[in-house]
Amino acid sequence: MRTTTGWQSNSASDRPTDLERTAFERRDLRDDDIAVRVDFCGVCHSDLHRIQGMLGEGDIVPGHEATGVVTAVGPAVTDLVMGDRVAIGTIVDSCGECAMCLAGQENYCWQGPVTTYGGTDRVDGTKTQGLYSREYVLKSTFAYRLPDGLDAAAAAPLMCAGISVWEPLVASGIGPGSRVAVAGLGGLGHLAVKLAAALGAEVTVLSRGTAKTDDAISLGATALLDTTDEQAVQDARGRFDLVIDTISAEHALEPLLGMLGLDGSFCMLGNPLMTPPRFFAFLPGRKRVFASGTGGRLHTAELLAFCAEHGITADVEVLPSARVSEALDRLERGDVRYRFVLDLADLDA
Amino acid sequence: MRTTTGWQSNSASDRPTDLERTAFERRDLRDDDIAVRVDFCGVCHSDLHRIQGMLGEGDIVPGHEATGVVTAVGPAVTDLVMGDRVAIGTIVDSCGECAMCLAGQENYCWQGPVTTYGGTDRVDGTKTQGLYSREYVLKSTFAYRLPDGLDAAAAAPLMCAGISVWEPLVASGIGPGSRVAVAGLGGLGHLAVKLAAALGAEVTVLSRGTAKTDDAISLGATALLDTTDEQAVQDARGRFDLVIDTISAEHALEPLLGMLGLDGSFCMLGNPLMTPPRFFAFLPGRKRVFASGTGGRLHTAELLAFCAEHGITADVEVLPSARVSEALDRLERGDVRYRFVLDLADLDA
Repeated sequence: MRTTTGWQSNSASDRPTDLERTAFERRDLRDDDIAVRVDFCGVCHSDLHRIQGMLGEGDIVPGHEATGVVTAVGPAVTDLVMGDRVAIGTIVDSCGECAMCLAGQENYCWQGPVTTYGGTDRVDGTKTQGLYSREYVLKSTFAYRLPDGLDAAAAAPLMCAGISVWEPLVASGIGPGSRVAVAGLGGLGHLAVKLAAALGAEVTVLSRGTAKTDDAISLGATALLDTTDEQAVQDARGRFDLVIDTISAEHALEPLLGMLGLDGSFCMLGNPLMTPPRFFAFLPGRKRVFASGTGGRLHTAELLAFCAEHGITADVEVLPSARVSEALDRLERGDVRYRFVLDLADLDA
Repeated sequence: MRTTTGWQSNSASDRPTDLERTAFERRDLRDDDIAVRVDFCGVCHSDLHRIQGMLGEGDIVPGHEATGVVTAVGPAVTDLVMGDRVAIGTIVDSCGECAMCLAGQENYCWQGPVTTYGGTDRVDGTKTQGLYSREYVLKSTFAYRLPDGLDAAAAAPLMCAGISVWEPLVASGIGPGSRVAVAGLGGLGHLAVKLAAALGAEVTVLSRGTAKTDDAISLGATALLDTTDEQAVQDARGRFDLVIDTISAEHALEPLLGMLGLDGSFCMLGNPLMTPPRFFAFLPGRKRVFASGTGGRLHTAELLAFCAEHGITADVEVLPSARVSEALDRLERGDVRYRFVLDLADLDA
């Protein structure tokens, strides 16, 4: 076995976000594995939910959107070599045989994808530990070559926040002429604005108040709509083809749904699978409601190529990984523009 | 005012389905009105719900899918003349100015469409009374010329049952290569099978048990799937592009949703707006859930043309209107293949 160092949650602590530096084992490389030196890992809101026990029990090394460099390859690996820059996302294995896997949608694998942390390895049954760590070992086909020109720190959030908004945009056929609304301007939301705008859509940010107007415009939106302004909400009735809801906190859905046009789609991304589940009544008016969950290999590779072509990365604040607790606490307060990324080099010390 | 005769509910009765023959007034023709001698009117499950108080209070003359002949025209009417065969559906007026009306989707009029019975007339504020009656007066633009070759009795159910399944088929882009499942083989379901098959889709009927297999095949389905057969349900995982749920009674949605493919759509038609509303949790896997409600002028005209071209009408059992109670009681027991139609000629006696 190999040993690495990472940041582990401690649910017994009074402050669960005070992660503890810990040494732990990584498996020896299988024939189709690679080892990756993890350089940068984004801090996702679902990491916070997991640490707080809302998405599963037990202490964990979180982290599922990262970039790094290949440091070792198994003998059967043909697509990557030592020294390659790679990106790792939320999924590290799947059955490979079901209709979803065959379609490149491993995120919906019928046997359940193996998540990057908190999952169960398909070979040895061990629990996966995430990317708030200096080394990760995974099947090479679930690592993606990081295109030249993408900054390694700023690209890390593409692997969860980015792909989570990319798949519903693509699946909804968004392009020139489409009208997209993005609710919530955090890690997912700010990337949704950038990506939808780059796809040619007219993008509106939905926000409580107008404080974020300048930010929305600078990210590529054409307008910000203040959802506390009842007249503005009323005037926007039926306006959008797609509403992407990235808000993690409880919030009223009705104003957002009312702005959907006929045959428009409402995509819930703010942890729809959280317990207790969120319920809603069937809506009249052919308004299609769905949830989406990260992405598969097909669209992840497509996203990275699109981002390289359009020069899109996340707006990030990079912190040494030893400041992970500060990042989590500030994330919980909404004090981030727009994604914290941990620099894991300090784990070498 | 004009006087006509119809069948009215009586909520004070021990048997609310014992409608009472009653004479009541129709308005004098406005400039853009026509009068229609109603010859045939289908008996819709929502009529039963309304009579039983589940869709509004107060006694009513039900009926909202009918065919007849124009007997009088107002001076501003240019599209119809006396003697024309026409069809009337669930909506008899709308604002005409909102985005939905301008798109020919008066069923989603932002001011609310005026329903054929139980609605409020936009001009004089009176309550509308339905088509279980010998004469109806309405704005001519909400009557549709009945194409030659369509049987007047068998075409009547196209105006509610037919358009209710047609709009979601068209809005979902169903055509050759599409895989459609229809849950429930009643008035709506049997027309969904016929129409989807005529559009070129591969159609599967979802039913509890296999008793309706021969019926399903003869209507145009390629197969019937027994939803009580867990293995069959499991084997159909992810199979369908569209599931149209026409079941009026309470039923489990999970088996139906599990058979939806990625980006598939689930359309709820069995009175989704009933109280109490039906709730469900957000689904993973980009499965789009929506409700649809009858149809607007654009698609209704399109449906009638399609049915004339393909020789499609409902399979009906025609009863003299004096036997309306029998029709309602048998409908409640599910004893109909597949739609009762009242012949209103007996109201002349």
